[in-house]
Amino acid sequence: MQTLQSIELRDGQVWIIDQTLLPGTLEHIRIDSVNQMFEAIQSLRVRGAPAIGVAAAFGVWIGVRDAAGQSGADLWPHLEQVSERLISARPTAVNLAWAINSLRQDLALHLDDSASDFKGRALSLALDLMRNDVQTCIRIGEHGAALLHDGMTVLTHCNAGGMATVALGTALAPIYVATQRGQHIEVFADETRPLMQGSRLTAYELSRAGIPVTIICDSAAPAVMQSGRIEAVFVGADRVAANGDVANKIGTYGLALAARAHNIPFYVAAPISTIDFNTASGSDIVIEERSEAEVLQPFGQQTAPEGVRAYNPAFDVTPAHLVTALITEQGILRGIDAQSMASLRSKRMPVADH
Amino acid sequence: MQTLQSIELRDGQVWIIDQTLLPGTLEHIRIDSVNQMFEAIQSLRVRGAPAIGVAAAFGVWIGVRDAAGQSGADLWPHLEQVSERLISARPTAVNLAWAINSLRQDLALHLDDSASDFKGRALSLALDLMRNDVQTCIRIGEHGAALLHDGMTVLTHCNAGGMATVALGTALAPIYVATQRGQHIEVFADETRPLMQGSRLTAYELSRAGIPVTIICDSAAPAVMQSGRIEAVFVGADRVAANGDVANKIGTYGLALAARAHNIPFYVAAPISTIDFNTASGSDIVIEERSEAEVLQPFGQQTAPEGVRAYNPAFDVTPAHLVTALITEQGILRGIDAQSMASLRSKRMPVADH
Repeated sequence: MQTLQSIELRDGQVWIIDQTLLPGTLEHIRIDSVNQMFEAIQSLRVRGAPAIGVAAAFGVWIGVRDAAGQSGADLWPHLEQVSERLISARPTAVNLAWAINSLRQDLALHLDDSASDFKGRALSLALDLMRNDVQTCIRIGEHGAALLHDGMTVLTHCNAGGMATVALGTALAPIYVATQRGQHIEVFADETRPLMQGSRLTAYELSRAGIPVTIICDSAAPAVMQSGRIEAVFVGADRVAANGDVANKIGTYGLALAARAHNIPFYVAAPISTIDFNTASGSDIVIEERSEAEVLQPFGQQTAPEGVRAYNPAFDVTPAHLVTALITEQGILRGIDAQSMASLRSKRMPVADH
Repeated sequence: MQTLQSIELRDGQVWIIDQTLLPGTLEHIRIDSVNQMFEAIQSLRVRGAPAIGVAAAFGVWIGVRDAAGQSGADLWPHLEQVSERLISARPTAVNLAWAINSLRQDLALHLDDSASDFKGRALSLALDLMRNDVQTCIRIGEHGAALLHDGMTVLTHCNAGGMATVALGTALAPIYVATQRGQHIEVFADETRPLMQGSRLTAYELSRAGIPVTIICDSAAPAVMQSGRIEAVFVGADRVAANGDVANKIGTYGLALAARAHNIPFYVAAPISTIDFNTASGSDIVIEERSEAEVLQPFGQQTAPEGVRAYNPAFDVTPAHLVTALITEQGILRGIDAQSMASLRSKRMPVADH
């Protein structure tokens, strides 16, 4: 089974897969500046909550690397500025801020280090985040695989696969693990308008891995559920509130309603770093609104009449009561509410100690 | 308020608006042969259950007009052949068969007429169907307008407007009537993948009529409902079963589930000719599956990886219990089930007597 790594360090340079070019072209691009990383995140060249967390951490390192100064303290104002800029690239995924703040917290204790040591430490922390993400996804996959059985057909939305993390993914990780164990799992993938991450990315990585995948229009999912062909829904998350409400790609909420209507389990897979314990409930989550052009001019072609407006929220909020279980690197959590979620609070994977 | 007529007879020739070119180009095309009408229906140049019924009736007339013979009896085998061909153009909308069978039933009593009279009668019947459709939509609009109030915001899916009928529409007719009465109604229009009838046609005709319309991705509708901005959903129907189950554009079922979850009334507007009393329930309705290319290559651009399959049902079935009311030319029917539906059976508008 062949999986891809969305972010890599090669010979001291950061490379990402430019996901906007998939599935037509698999191209790695080198990121040399903070501006370039900011643009890559905002334009969804790198996307998916866990992946943009890691990408942003490398972005902070690049910013620090290229700054002048004798000590950590000299570099600090620059680090702060770069951090704020990268956090602002996309407002909904909490991993972005979480990853950057992990770096900041650690580096704040090393202001007396030489500039060279400080820069080396920033790189080392970013690499740790990347390695941790890979490990986290493997654990999510192993826990989640217990929810699958041979011959099962599942539905997924957007891309919560290897392309949304460093590798393997969150919602797709259980499918990869079950497949590696010899089970036959089939997937229906919502195409995921407006940016088609389902057909462009999920179908791409699943078919590369030899997993049978059928693409449907987002609006067809309830009918496919009604037909009895779907045994479970697996999605990722961009932010999970303290009470278990889930912000994820627009369309997730409708899927959760349809799954409930058909008694189909609805699973959300996400690393604990995606949980924002400072956000009480879904109604407190800032939902990114993206450009109208994504809706009105799909693939550069004007499909709507000139002058008509569009509303393009990138995410929606699924209330916790519609989530059958949350799959994290720590296991499977059922009965999701503020109390059960609190049990995960102490289990965030710390940035490794140096 | 400016509305369009999707099908017209001008100087003895049938013209339709080629809806595949909208909203970029408003072009009327002349239909000169049965093959051309078949292609126009199958390719959705003319679409919408009521409109394709009327279009098919004109198609039967064109077929009869161009056939050789001395009498109605001579033309009959040709009429039968043409009818079967046109009915096969699209399987789900019952109006197609209903309109053609209306013509057949009447013409079967006129086999002794001269060929010229028989042809004239076929044209006259098609024209009656067209005029009846216009009147039916006006009545649907007047009945449905009672469900609207000034300042209301509604959601619609696909195009059940003037472009789906001869003029005015079904689901949009109440909105047009309320607007004509001076009420301010705003509309959220689902773009309606894969063929974008919502952004291409609904937004086009509403904005032409000066009605504020906002386009959203289909998958955003549940989130917009959750936000509290939608006070009612209005959709059309391609076939309504005897028990009130509704086949309509793919995505309708998910909307109905989301509307129910938010206690938003879900209205289906359709002429009584859309009710198929020979189909007991939704599970007996044949759902047209259209080409995978509509999903995999939107607007001619390959978005999915080569070799990956798509499943592309054109319609889904909303169970009657999710329908708040059915709006027909006879009024508003609530409490929809086989019994209440039966009350509409005697009320089909007959093809006018000659």
